[in-house]
Amino acid sequence: MIKRRLSSIHGHLNDDDGEAAVVRGPNQPFLIEQIRVDPPQKMEVRIKILYTSICHTDLSAWKGENEAQQAFPRILGHEAVGVVESVGEGVRELKEGDHVVPIFNGECGECVYCKSQGTNLCETFRVNPLKSVMQNDGKSRFSTKDGHPIFHFLNTSTFTEYSVLDSACLVKLHIHPDASTLKNMTLLSCGVSTGVGAAWNVANVQPGSSVAIFGLGAVGLAASQGARARGASKIIGVDRNPDKFLIGKTMGMTDFINPKDSPKPVHERVREMTNGGVDHSFECVGDAGVLREAFLSTHDGWGKTIIIGVHPSPQTLPLHPMELFDGRSIIGTTFGGYKGKTQLPDLAKACMRGVLNLEGLISHELPMENINEAFQLLKDGKALRCLLHV
Amino acid sequence: MIKRRLSSIHGHLNDDDGEAAVVRGPNQPFLIEQIRVDPPQKMEVRIKILYTSICHTDLSAWKGENEAQQAFPRILGHEAVGVVESVGEGVRELKEGDHVVPIFNGECGECVYCKSQGTNLCETFRVNPLKSVMQNDGKSRFSTKDGHPIFHFLNTSTFTEYSVLDSACLVKLHIHPDASTLKNMTLLSCGVSTGVGAAWNVANVQPGSSVAIFGLGAVGLAASQGARARGASKIIGVDRNPDKFLIGKTMGMTDFINPKDSPKPVHERVREMTNGGVDHSFECVGDAGVLREAFLSTHDGWGKTIIIGVHPSPQTLPLHPMELFDGRSIIGTTFGGYKGKTQLPDLAKACMRGVLNLEGLISHELPMENINEAFQLLKDGKALRCLLHV
Repeated sequence: MIKRRLSSIHGHLNDDDGEAAVVRGPNQPFLIEQIRVDPPQKMEVRIKILYTSICHTDLSAWKGENEAQQAFPRILGHEAVGVVESVGEGVRELKEGDHVVPIFNGECGECVYCKSQGTNLCETFRVNPLKSVMQNDGKSRFSTKDGHPIFHFLNTSTFTEYSVLDSACLVKLHIHPDASTLKNMTLLSCGVSTGVGAAWNVANVQPGSSVAIFGLGAVGLAASQGARARGASKIIGVDRNPDKFLIGKTMGMTDFINPKDSPKPVHERVREMTNGGVDHSFECVGDAGVLREAFLSTHDGWGKTIIIGVHPSPQTLPLHPMELFDGRSIIGTTFGGYKGKTQLPDLAKACMRGVLNLEGLISHELPMENINEAFQLLKDGKALRCLLHV
Repeated sequence: MIKRRLSSIHGHLNDDDGEAAVVRGPNQPFLIEQIRVDPPQKMEVRIKILYTSICHTDLSAWKGENEAQQAFPRILGHEAVGVVESVGEGVRELKEGDHVVPIFNGECGECVYCKSQGTNLCETFRVNPLKSVMQNDGKSRFSTKDGHPIFHFLNTSTFTEYSVLDSACLVKLHIHPDASTLKNMTLLSCGVSTGVGAAWNVANVQPGSSVAIFGLGAVGLAASQGARARGASKIIGVDRNPDKFLIGKTMGMTDFINPKDSPKPVHERVREMTNGGVDHSFECVGDAGVLREAFLSTHDGWGKTIIIGVHPSPQTLPLHPMELFDGRSIIGTTFGGYKGKTQLPDLAKACMRGVLNLEGLISHELPMENINEAFQLLKDGKALRCLLHV
């Protein structure tokens, strides 16, 4: 894969106007437009985006695959690293110049959910693909030069020079990274946190355990890194693209199954390789048939399947209730179970210590102006993560 | 409900013949027959049944509702208390005269499953409705006087004066109970262990938590007792028979919902009563619609639904994969998560200390000769547990 390296250019922070990649309808090309970005209101923060990267959720929203298609024009993007430009009334924990990572699954810290140890879903700022305006006043902070609103996306909107977010959706990086590692932190906004968190927080992978990962995109590869860091002894990657095994190996995978190689169901092959099945399987595709294979690939008695992939509607779980009596279980996870504001600073430190390899997940780098090219790379399955320099 | 009390009559233990209630085909009346019971083989034990009780699983096997219908003639029954008559080669932990409780979900203690803390399913002696012969030689130990085999059921077969079980499927009662409490211990074979274990081992109900129980048979009522013993502050019983609420109250239930009382879905009513949903719900019916209501009755973020009811085939789980992303989970359980031989002796002691009320779950007592009457009571929904004196 090609990796283009560009010098980082930090913009001015004292301007509320800026460029953004605006999408005006499903499957329409991104247009680089000059937009207005209103000042932050109460408990909001305006940030300058330094780097942003592209996730499959952006791609599916751009395609209009789900209800998120209703709100156009819109600024997509939810993986980024930025710097605080100004803060609204009441914001105490962030100040101008702080480096921050946006999180689409926010944490207000006050609600019954945030106070529960049992969930990372905030009552107000949980992931919500239908939300396209700010919480305070139900309006957008983005507008065209002639005053027409441009909608927000996933509590974040990062394909833009400036963005306004609720402070509940920004994590301060307590480290002081140099420019070369700073940009990798975009992956903490979604892909790496989701994959690693699934392995650490949800599956709770233990040393010596076995794992199967279905779908070797950035999230699946991050899950592999998480499993390796926890000492899993066997990590089986499953993907229809054998090219993925090369990078899979660098992320900890020990074995690889290409479903196209054999008429035998994948779960039978996994069971043969693991004396009855893996301890944990991760479904990172969003396909019911793959989900069933992932479920059946786990060991009866204790196997756990973690659903990470986004599944289209309508579709019921492809399992019989009695199949749960064999002791296999299935669980969904959002943002890897992380409470973002509370726990991501420690994850960032772990990345700085080299526990995880973020850089290896960034396959391409382009200026934001080339966002259409970047989307094409993702559509063609050529990119893991393409980093845009804003 | 009528409770007939009979004096307990212990039979002679030195005879390998005896009476049994044999069923010769689906929905056929039980016939009390004189049968032969072969001596126990290696690691097997022959016991004299003192008391046995009837569970819905016996009823569905008698009706031929599932694959279990293939093996006739058969001796059904899996809840009992008995005394060891003789032991086969290699049996060290049991001896003549020991009081024992059969368990349909056995524990060999040696396999990878028994050695795992993650499951209570034994590799060899797990619950298996298709199994109708002994493990050692694939043959039955029961036969008619003219030598025709009579098949086993669920590793147990308790509607008989004498039975032969693998020692892995017998739990020794270390207590020395008097006759009046001994008979209640039949419920440890299935109903009480399943319900209480679901609350303690699977849901892990915590003080102050909220619970909804769908289906107020013996298992649901036992789950209620388990939740109460753990300090649950709200226990909602859901049943279409309002008569069940009286006994539900004695088992710890604080509220009751009759789905027939309102067109509003049960889950909406539960959520209104609990500020968003219960922490745990228990599905003790085996119906897909009830299962969906049970799932939606839990609080998003952390709610857990335990499937206990036996669901007919074919039927997939009535949930969309993305519904698991709201943080609700669903899990199946066999035998309440108990490793029978290891953990049931402590449960028996807890019952002796009065932590659980077993007697209240026994609604009727009859001699085994009246087994057809007892089945009719269960079919008519009039009995919780009918205890048969053998």
